[in-house]
Amino acid sequence: MINKLVKNIQKTGAPIVVGLDPMMKFIPEHITKKAFAEYGETLKGAAEAILEYNKAIVDAVYDLIPAVKPQIAMYEQFGIEGLIAYKKTVDYCKEKGLVVIGDIKRGDIGSTSEAYAVGHLGKVQVGSKSYYGFDEDFATVNPYLGSDGVKPFIDVCKEEKKGIFILVKTSNPSSGEFQDQKIDGKPLYEMVGEKVAQWGEEAMGDSYSYVGAVVGATYPEQGRILRKVMPKAFILVPGYGAQGGKGADLVHFFNEDGLGAIVNSSRGIIAAYKQEKYAQFGAEHFADASRAAVIDMREDIASALAAK
Amino acid sequence: MINKLVKNIQKTGAPIVVGLDPMMKFIPEHITKKAFAEYGETLKGAAEAILEYNKAIVDAVYDLIPAVKPQIAMYEQFGIEGLIAYKKTVDYCKEKGLVVIGDIKRGDIGSTSEAYAVGHLGKVQVGSKSYYGFDEDFATVNPYLGSDGVKPFIDVCKEEKKGIFILVKTSNPSSGEFQDQKIDGKPLYEMVGEKVAQWGEEAMGDSYSYVGAVVGATYPEQGRILRKVMPKAFILVPGYGAQGGKGADLVHFFNEDGLGAIVNSSRGIIAAYKQEKYAQFGAEHFADASRAAVIDMREDIASALAAK
Repeated sequence: MINKLVKNIQKTGAPIVVGLDPMMKFIPEHITKKAFAEYGETLKGAAEAILEYNKAIVDAVYDLIPAVKPQIAMYEQFGIEGLIAYKKTVDYCKEKGLVVIGDIKRGDIGSTSEAYAVGHLGKVQVGSKSYYGFDEDFATVNPYLGSDGVKPFIDVCKEEKKGIFILVKTSNPSSGEFQDQKIDGKPLYEMVGEKVAQWGEEAMGDSYSYVGAVVGATYPEQGRILRKVMPKAFILVPGYGAQGGKGADLVHFFNEDGLGAIVNSSRGIIAAYKQEKYAQFGAEHFADASRAAVIDMREDIASALAAK
Repeated sequence: MINKLVKNIQKTGAPIVVGLDPMMKFIPEHITKKAFAEYGETLKGAAEAILEYNKAIVDAVYDLIPAVKPQIAMYEQFGIEGLIAYKKTVDYCKEKGLVVIGDIKRGDIGSTSEAYAVGHLGKVQVGSKSYYGFDEDFATVNPYLGSDGVKPFIDVCKEEKKGIFILVKTSNPSSGEFQDQKIDGKPLYEMVGEKVAQWGEEAMGDSYSYVGAVVGATYPEQGRILRKVMPKAFILVPGYGAQGGKGADLVHFFNEDGLGAIVNSSRGIIAAYKQEKYAQFGAEHFADASRAAVIDMREDIASALAAK
């Protein structure tokens, strides 16, 4: 799957992942109205609105981008109905040829991580049969529990030729509280980065590992260091746009081959119609606004990389 | 809810939580056979078997224990059907008067943590209405992202009078890889413990905080230190039994008031009938074996505390 991700990026010329993190306040009224008319103001009504909103955005941008990243929390908050919409979103995006990164940030002790890995990336055994649960292509993983919480994911990745992105340095303001703490003079995120590189060695694709990392666009200097610490790890870079990261901040996350990073934007794309810049599209044409925002993001990154 | 947890512990005299972490290999054949006869060897068949298995165990032990801790990964691996069984398990246990600790180990950046908090502990807004998603009483939370990933959980806890247990020192063998690393001479878990104490100050119940901690029974020495670092935090202690922790290891996790800790056992209780000690019950009476194992665990902890 890392090979497919690289191929998709080369085909589109866009190291971009669209974060499908729907919030009710982003969804245009004509969509919620229709869903509520059919299902009422219920969890099912909300889930239906989310799914229709996602599909319209995906239809408008899928030819421009290599991948999407649905954030499962935004679905999980609506309980079972929300998770059904998550699963349908995953399936819809895969049908469109997109690589799907499940932003699930799971991680637990060994036997439990195995269950998460099986449920999201692999197949679960039921009697003599086996089934995919959520079946994303990649998943994000929290490293706080150490190797035995991560290894079960890698085992499933090797079997299924899928991948993971491990949280190394997250994009949020308080990420430094623990991640920046120095151990023998070296910050924790760097130590986690070294582990990512080591874990990744045993699961290599053609040029990059099945084991990638999450490093926030909001921390470009740390990105530069981590790029060198984990040369074969693809870096998933959140925090562009709404969280404050800019194209120029991104250049150090990429390798000399122009690859090695994929930049996420969520509300900057999916709620583009709410920005002044794209207001002319109006709520009715929100998906066209998303398409325009993807094109602008592609240009921003391309010109930053050209000026590197 | 922390007050209810304390009350339940005092009523039962058992600082015990039963981990409802069903694995297919634990479930007696007569249950899986029946479920597969009705639904086939499908995800729904597996989910049905899990639910029946859980209910039988809960029926057999609910009067002896204050709380249960379903591990969501064991359900999530079966996709949507598994999560429906998780939700039904939560509801069934609450009907029996048990406190339900959702072992979900979620944690993300602020707005995303808010969605998890809302989905598991709070109510989500849909138009003019609001709904509980999973509605556990407590949830476990991963601290790797720092304060802004934890605070949204605390906000919802204050609104709903619910609680969280934050991973501090986990029970697994490789937990030390990052958690034991020394920062200015002090291990990371201690630093996280100090934060737990600080976060907990703003959300106090009668004698303990809404904000608790997870510290593994497999690390009794660290438990002794963390008990002092977080005097008002209830400690959820996994790792007893199958993972190697013993009653005598547990004494330092408790405060002088005999409270402050609740010890989890999962397979040691739910799959007790597979142990030689309880083999006489047979697979048919697996739930009676679980009841006997709860009684033995209660005695083990009580005599260890008496000898303190």
